[in-house]
Amino acid sequence: MEALKDKIIREGQAVGTGIVKVDGFLNHQIDVKFMDEIGKEFRRRFADIEVDKILTVEASGIGIACMTAPYFGYPPVVFAKKTTPSTMTEDFYGAEAKSFTKGTVSIIRVAKKYLHEGDRVLILDDFLAHGQAALAMTQLVQQAGAKVLGIGAVIEKGFQGGGQKLRQAGFRLESLAVIEKIDDGTIAFV
Amino acid sequence: MEALKDKIIREGQAVGTGIVKVDGFLNHQIDVKFMDEIGKEFRRRFADIEVDKILTVEASGIGIACMTAPYFGYPPVVFAKKTTPSTMTEDFYGAEAKSFTKGTVSIIRVAKKYLHEGDRVLILDDFLAHGQAALAMTQLVQQAGAKVLGIGAVIEKGFQGGGQKLRQAGFRLESLAVIEKIDDGTIAFV
Repeated sequence: MEALKDKIIREGQAVGTGIVKVDGFLNHQIDVKFMDEIGKEFRRRFADIEVDKILTVEASGIGIACMTAPYFGYPPVVFAKKTTPSTMTEDFYGAEAKSFTKGTVSIIRVAKKYLHEGDRVLILDDFLAHGQAALAMTQLVQQAGAKVLGIGAVIEKGFQGGGQKLRQAGFRLESLAVIEKIDDGTIAFV
Repeated sequence: MEALKDKIIREGQAVGTGIVKVDGFLNHQIDVKFMDEIGKEFRRRFADIEVDKILTVEASGIGIACMTAPYFGYPPVVFAKKTTPSTMTEDFYGAEAKSFTKGTVSIIRVAKKYLHEGDRVLILDDFLAHGQAALAMTQLVQQAGAKVLGIGAVIEKGFQGGGQKLRQAGFRLESLAVIEKIDDGTIAFV
């Protein structure tokens, strides 16, 4: 998606060789009009599927999922939680996700009543790096006996292997921008 | 907002005398089409103002803010963070918010570059209970030298005093549904 690559170049910030910060339109401040374009593009890439749920993970995935849902006919958006709120008393599905950026392992959870057997699920997230969050979400879906029809990432860091891992596992993955290399303040796309 | 009250009655779950869970359409699973109606209603309530930013706090506020932004001409949505990610290296504004539900105190933060002096800000959140999160957000805005034009809450728990506190402090508050009492599994609105 050319508009996205332009935006990453213009507004993103390369940190070291592994991190690109897009806090200005995605991870802290959200450019909602642009997220609407992102939603439209996900629909274009997944034009041939209908889904019962969009699954994402808090927090940055929520805006993306909400702006994409209208293009799929408003399926419910379910966001996996990274913490266990005291109000989360039901049974849940859980899967481990390691964050290489933060150096932490967290368990993401979805209450069982929001993922059902047979549900056709589209997984969406902001970044795909080592693929840990996306893989964890596929596990939640599988625990429910539901089916992953596709995985959409806004930005894939191709050099961190997550995309390859997911494709090799047989998942259909669409990344709207794939970064090949981050180096010395510059960002190169595949 | 009658449709909201109906939805809370139909799909919400009263817990004890203090908590109403709306995980089915707001806090875990999001009914995006309904959030669009919520956004429209916030615009109707704040029809006379124009804003430069919508400020909310992760995670549940994000969907609400994103679906409201189009009705205000797509101002940027800024979501305050509850944690300090390792990638958040800039200067930030910070304010304490106590969660009575979770029994914790957290600091919410916004990077200084996303709130500017003179910005006209609409604060949005899912719940208004004791008012801690909303008050913390007003402090972030004030630290930036920006101006709170309004505060919108989807659900106000009127009996927990936050609304009164905010109104007494001179803020313009619009709550789309005000709960008077939660008791024995029933929910009564003002």
